[in-house]
Amino acid sequence: MIRVVIIGDGYTAADLVRILSLHEKVRITAVTSVENVGAKLSELYPSLTGLVDITLQETDLDQLKTRADAAFLALPHGLSVPIVAELVESGIKCVDLGADFRLKDVEVYKKHYQLEHGRPDLLREAVYGLPEIYRQEVKTARIVANPGCYPTGAILGLAPLLRTGLISSKGIIVDSKSGVTGAGRGLSRNTHFCEVNEGFKAYGVGNHRHAPEIEQELSAAAGEKISITFTPHLVPMSRGILTTAYAEMKPGVRPDEIRGALEESYGSERFVKVLPAGTYPQTRWVYGSNYVHIGVFVNPDDGRVIVITAIDNLTKGASGQAVQNFNLLFGLDEAEALKAPAIYP
Amino acid sequence: MIRVVIIGDGYTAADLVRILSLHEKVRITAVTSVENVGAKLSELYPSLTGLVDITLQETDLDQLKTRADAAFLALPHGLSVPIVAELVESGIKCVDLGADFRLKDVEVYKKHYQLEHGRPDLLREAVYGLPEIYRQEVKTARIVANPGCYPTGAILGLAPLLRTGLISSKGIIVDSKSGVTGAGRGLSRNTHFCEVNEGFKAYGVGNHRHAPEIEQELSAAAGEKISITFTPHLVPMSRGILTTAYAEMKPGVRPDEIRGALEESYGSERFVKVLPAGTYPQTRWVYGSNYVHIGVFVNPDDGRVIVITAIDNLTKGASGQAVQNFNLLFGLDEAEALKAPAIYP
Amino acid sequence: MIRVVIIGDGYTAADLVRILSLHEKVRITAVTSVENVGAKLSELYPSLTGLVDITLQETDLDQLKTRADAAFLALPHGLSVPIVAELVESGIKCVDLGADFRLKDVEVYKKHYQLEHGRPDLLREAVYGLPEIYRQEVKTARIVANPGCYPTGAILGLAPLLRTGLISSKGIIVDSKSGVTGAGRGLSRNTHFCEVNEGFKAYGVGNHRHAPEIEQELSAAAGEKISITFTPHLVPMSRGILTTAYAEMKPGVRPDEIRGALEESYGSERFVKVLPAGTYPQTRWVYGSNYVHIGVFVNPDDGRVIVITAIDNLTKGASGQAVQNFNLLFGLDEAEALKAPAIYP
Amino acid sequence: MIRVVIIGDGYTAADLVRILSLHEKVRITAVTSVENVGAKLSELYPSLTGLVDITLQETDLDQLKTRADAAFLALPHGLSVPIVAELVESGIKCVDLGADFRLKDVEVYKKHYQLEHGRPDLLREAVYGLPEIYRQEVKTARIVANPGCYPTGAILGLAPLLRTGLISSKGIIVDSKSGVTGAGRGLSRNTHFCEVNEGFKAYGVGNHRHAPEIEQELSAAAGEKISITFTPHLVPMSRGILTTAYAEMKPGVRPDEIRGALEESYGSERFVKVLPAGTYPQTRWVYGSNYVHIGVFVNPDDGRVIVITAIDNLTKGASGQAVQNFNLLFGLDEAEALKAPAIYP
Repeated sequence: MIRVVIIGDGYTAADLVRILSLHEKVRITAVTSVENVGAKLSELYPSLTGLVDITLQETDLDQLKTRADAAFLALPHGLSVPIVAELVESGIKCVDLGADFRLKDVEVYKKHYQLEHGRPDLLREAVYGLPEIYRQEVKTARIVANPGCYPTGAILGLAPLLRTGLISSKGIIVDSKSGVTGAGRGLSRNTHFCEVNEGFKAYGVGNHRHAPEIEQELSAAAGEKISITFTPHLVPMSRGILTTAYAEMKPGVRPDEIRGALEESYGSERFVKVLPAGTYPQTRWVYGSNYVHIGVFVNPDDGRVIVITAIDNLTKGASGQAVQNFNLLFGLDEAEALKAPAIYP
Repeated sequence: MIRVVIIGDGYTAADLVRILSLHEKVRITAVTSVENVGAKLSELYPSLTGLVDITLQETDLDQLKTRADAAFLALPHGLSVPIVAELVESGIKCVDLGADFRLKDVEVYKKHYQLEHGRPDLLREAVYGLPEIYRQEVKTARIVANPGCYPTGAILGLAPLLRTGLISSKGIIVDSKSGVTGAGRGLSRNTHFCEVNEGFKAYGVGNHRHAPEIEQELSAAAGEKISITFTPHLVPMSRGILTTAYAEMKPGVRPDEIRGALEESYGSERFVKVLPAGTYPQTRWVYGSNYVHIGVFVNPDDGRVIVITAIDNLTKGASGQAVQNFNLLFGLDEAEALKAPAIYP
Repeated sequence: MIRVVIIGDGYTAADLVRILSLHEKVRITAVTSVENVGAKLSELYPSLTGLVDITLQETDLDQLKTRADAAFLALPHGLSVPIVAELVESGIKCVDLGADFRLKDVEVYKKHYQLEHGRPDLLREAVYGLPEIYRQEVKTARIVANPGCYPTGAILGLAPLLRTGLISSKGIIVDSKSGVTGAGRGLSRNTHFCEVNEGFKAYGVGNHRHAPEIEQELSAAAGEKISITFTPHLVPMSRGILTTAYAEMKPGVRPDEIRGALEESYGSERFVKVLPAGTYPQTRWVYGSNYVHIGVFVNPDDGRVIVITAIDNLTKGASGQAVQNFNLLFGLDEAEALKAPAIYP
Repeated sequence: MIRVVIIGDGYTAADLVRILSLHEKVRITAVTSVENVGAKLSELYPSLTGLVDITLQETDLDQLKTRADAAFLALPHGLSVPIVAELVESGIKCVDLGADFRLKDVEVYKKHYQLEHGRPDLLREAVYGLPEIYRQEVKTARIVANPGCYPTGAILGLAPLLRTGLISSKGIIVDSKSGVTGAGRGLSRNTHFCEVNEGFKAYGVGNHRHAPEIEQELSAAAGEKISITFTPHLVPMSRGILTTAYAEMKPGVRPDEIRGALEESYGSERFVKVLPAGTYPQTRWVYGSNYVHIGVFVNPDDGRVIVITAIDNLTKGASGQAVQNFNLLFGLDEAEALKAPAIYP
C-alpha cells in the first residue's frame, strides 16, 4: 500500500479522502489541520461517519516523513513552499493543490499573490499537473502543481485550438461560472447561503488570480505570449464550473477543423469527452466525477468559436485531478478510484 | 380607473396581476386563457388567494373591447398579431409582451420565428418599449412591443456606449445567464427541477431568437449594422438575468469616458442604477423589482470593456417594464406600482 | 409623517426598510449599527441602491429620542431591555423584534436565554404582537413584543382549535421547516452555502427557544398549561416557514368543526387565508409578503388533526408583522405598506 | 459475470446503471424503454457519455430471458406483475423497484393502487427487500420487492423500537421530507423548477401510498396492527429524504434504552450509522450513497421519542438498495459497488 498524508482539512481535503477511501493501493496515514487538531475528520465531515477513522493532527513534518510515500497539500497559497521543500527532500512525492507551484514566473506569482516565492528552483522543477497535456512529465515528477479549477476547464477547452494554430491568440474571452465550493470552507459574506442563493453575480472582474495561470498555459500551447479576458461568476450551486470561452478562427480555417482538433486531442483520453455537435455541457453531467465535457460551436459567418467546458471544480478541478496525478506518479492505472460516473440527477 | 385586460395566463401574466393589484389607477377587468378557462386565477397562482377574484375566460375580443382601455398580451409568438390588430382598431392601447412586434424587419422575423408577419404596417407603427431609450415614442404609441428579457439587459448596458461611439461595433459578445422563469410555465425536460437544479448550462448557442432583437437595437444606437455573439445560459434559480457583455474601446477613448457615458445616460432614470466602481451587480439585488443594476470595468491595458447588468427577467424583463410602458401610454407616473425595492435576501 | 428609527442592521432591519420605504406615513430618520457605523445602508444591502439614503450610525439614545415617534428594535436577545426602557420613558412607542419581551415568565426567559430580565415591569406591560389575537391590546400598547417566526406560524394554526376546545391539549407536535434567513446575517458554518444547499436537516431538537414561546401562547388559548414537542428544520431556501402541526380532536368533535373554527377565526382577517379543503400551503405562495396560508386535514378514522401553515419568516414572521403592529399602534390602516402579494414564482 | 437487464429508463434505472457500471461482477446486457426505444442511454443521461454504450430497446421478454441472470424492474405500479411472473419462471431473479410486490395484503394493494393484483401467489412469495431486516429471506428469494423510499427511512428508524417493545404502537407520526427526484422524471407542474424552487410544501396529506407500506412493516416489527400518521413534504433539492418520526416511550422504559436498541440493531450493519447523541442527520451526508444516518432524541420529561433518519432516496431509497439486494441474491459481498461515501459538500 502506498502511504499517503493529506495536509489540510478543507473541502478539497475532504474530497481527497472521499476518493482515496476507494483507492485499492492507498492507505491514508494522516490528515493534518490547524484549527481542528484532535477532532475526528468525521466530525467535520459526517459523510465519512463509520467509513474512515482519522483524527486530525498537527502538521509535524518529522513525523509525517516517516509515514508517507506521497503527500497531498491542500493549503492556502504561500504555505506549501516550505513544506514541499522539506518533504521532497525526504523522497516524498508531493501533489500541491494550492497555487504555490503553478506560476512559472516568480514575478507573476509575486504580483498576483503578494508573496516572494521562497524556492524558485522547486518552482522550475514542478510539473503543471494537467495530465491531458503533461502526462509524461508528471510521471517522473517529484512535485506536481495541481491546476486551479478555472484553469482546468479553460485550458482543456482552448489549448488544442491554440496548439494547432486554428484560432487567433488575440481577443480570447473566458467567461466562467462556478459553484460555491470553489470559495472553500471558510466563512465569509460571499458564501453565506442567503447572499448567494437565488442570485447570480460576477466577481474578481478584471483581476482574478486564475487569469495569469490560464494565460501561462495558453501561451505555452500557442508558442507565444497570450493575454486573455477572464470573468468568473458565482452560481447558486455547490459544485461545478462551466466555462464559455470565445475565440476567433484564423483566416482560412474550416469550422470542422475546430471540432476535429478537439476530438483528436481527446479521442484517447479517459476523462475528457467531446460532446456531439449541437450538444453543450451541463455541469450536472460531471457532478462528483473526474470527467470533463466539451461542446463546441463555430459560426461560419464570422468565424466566432465558442468552446464550452464543464467540470466538477472539486474533483477534476482539484482532488480528482490530484489523484489522477498521484496515479501517474506511482505508475498506477490513471483512473484508479476515479471511474465513477457523475451523480445524476 | 383605467380598465385593463390581460390576454394569457402564464408567468408574465401572473406577474402583471401581482404588480397591477397595487396600481391605484387600474382595474383588471379580464384575464383570458386557453387551457384554464373557468378556473380561478388564484387556483393557478395561489399566491393571489383572497387578493384578486378573477375567473379565467376565453379570449372573446368583442366582449373584451367593451371592457378595456388597455390590453396586455402575454402570448406565444405568432398569436398576438390578429388580436392587436383588432384591439387597436377599437381604440384599445396594446402592450405586447410577446415577440410579434419587436423585430422591425419582417424578413428577420420570418427567419427567426418561421412565420409570415400578417401586419407589417402595424409592425412599423409599434414602438419598441424600452422607456429609457424610446420614452417619447412610447407616450404616443398605440402599440408597444415590450422588449425581450435578454435584450432588456443587453441593450441597456451597451446602447449608451455605442450611441456615443466609445466602443467598437465589432466583436461584441453578450454572455447572458437567466433564471428558469424565462422558460415559462410550460412543461418540458428543460424546466424539470431535477434537470436544472445544482447544474449550469448554455443553451441556444449560436441561434437564440433574442440575438436579432439585440442586434436591431444596438444597430440603431450605433447607427450602423451590428452583429453580435449571444450565448444564453440557464442558472438554477427562478428569477433574474445577469448579462456580461464584452466590447472594445475605440482607440483614443479614455476608460473614464465609458463609465461617464453610462452615468450620463441613466443619471436621471428612475429604474437604472449605475453601481460604484468595483461593484458588480447581483441579480438578487433586483429580485422581484423593476430596477436595473449596471457595473462596468475597463481594462486600460488592452481596452477591453466589460459591462454587467442585472434585471429581474419577469419584472423589468417583462411585466414590470410592461406596466412602465402602460404608465407612459396613459400619462401616469412612470413608476406607479413599480416602486417596491427588491426582496432581499 | 411618523418618524421612525430602526435599531439594528441585520436581515430583519433590511426588510423593515424595504417595507417602510413604501409606507406613505413614515419617514425613517435613523438606522443604527454596531459593526457598520458610517457605512451606507445600501452598501450592506445594494438592493436599496438609489432608493434610500441612510448612513448607519451608532445607537445614541439621546439623539434618537429627538428624532423618533416610534422605534423598531432588531437586536440579539438581551440588548433590547435597557433601550426600550429608556425610549418608552421618552414617549417613543417600541416594537421589539427580538425575544426580550415575549416570554411573560421571567424564569422561563432566564432558563432559555440564560439572562436575568432587567425590567419585569415592562415585560408585564408589553403586548405580544400577534394582531390576529391581540389586536385591541396592541392598539394601546407602548411596547409590542413582536412574535418569533416559528411561533407566528404555529400559534396562528393551533390557537383557534385550542380556544374552542376542539383539540386535546396533550401530545401536540409542531414540526417546522424554515428557510435560512431565519438564522440571520451572521457568519457560521450553519449558514455556509455549501453546508446548507441541497440538504435538509433538523436542528435544536428538543431545546429550541421558540418552544416556550409557542407553549405560552397555546396555553393562553387553551386556558391551561400546555407542553408541546417542537422540532425545527432547515430548508435549503432563503425565506419561508412551513409548520406542520399535529393534534388530536377531542372526543365528540366533528371534523368539519375543525375547519369551521379556523375559518371563523380568520374570515375577516386581512392577512390570514384558510385554503380550500385538499389544498395545503406552499411557502412560495407567501414569499416576501405578510400573508399566512393555512391548510387543514382531519382524519375521521382516528381523529388526527394536521394543521399546516406557511409564512414568510422575515415578513409575517418578523418585519411585516412589526409594521402591522406599528400601523395598529398609530391608528393607521393595518395593511398600510403590506398589501403586496407574494412574488411568485 | 452476472448478466443483468434493467427494465425501465427513469431516474432509478439511471442510478442503477451508475452503480452497476462499477460492479465488478455484473454486465448490463439490456436496458428497456417504452418512449425512448432506439436512443442511446447516454442521450437521456449524458452523465454516462463514453462510459456505457447501451441502446434502449423494447421489453421483449423472450429475448431478455436469453440474456439475463437477473432483472431489475423500474416501472410504474401495475406493470411489473406479468413481467416478473414470466421472468422468474425462466429462472431469472427479479428485483422490483416498483410497488407491485411490497404490500402483502392484496386488498390493501387494491385500495391504494386501484388495481387487482394478478398474482397473489407471487406476492406471498416475494421478500420485502430491506436487508437490515430481511437479509436471510432475501438471500434465497426469487423475487425481491425493493422498498419504497419513504418506507426505507421510516422503517429503519422505528422498527427496532417497536420490535423491542420500547415505544407505544399508538400515535406514531412520520413527518418526511423528500427531494424532487422522488417524483420521477415525468413532466408535471409539481416538478417544474419554478413551482418547486425556493419553496416548501406538504403533499399527499392523509393519503400517500407509502403509508400502508410503512404500516405493514411496523406492524410486523411490533407484532400487532399499527396505524400511523404519515405526511410527506417536498424539499427544493434533488436527492435525499429526511424522516422525523415521533413516538412515545412505553411506561418504565429508560431513555438510554431507546438509543441502545438502535445501536444494537445496527452495530454490525454496513450501511446504517447511528449518530452520536446530540447529532442529527443531514441528507447531504448520505448524498449519492447507500448509507443511512440515524439520530435520536428522547425527552425524559414526557417520554417523547424523536427518531430522525436520512437517506438518499434514489440510492438507499431505490437503486442502491436494489443492488444491495442483488448482491445478497447472488451471494456476493453485500456492499459490492456500494462502498463510495457520499458526495460532500
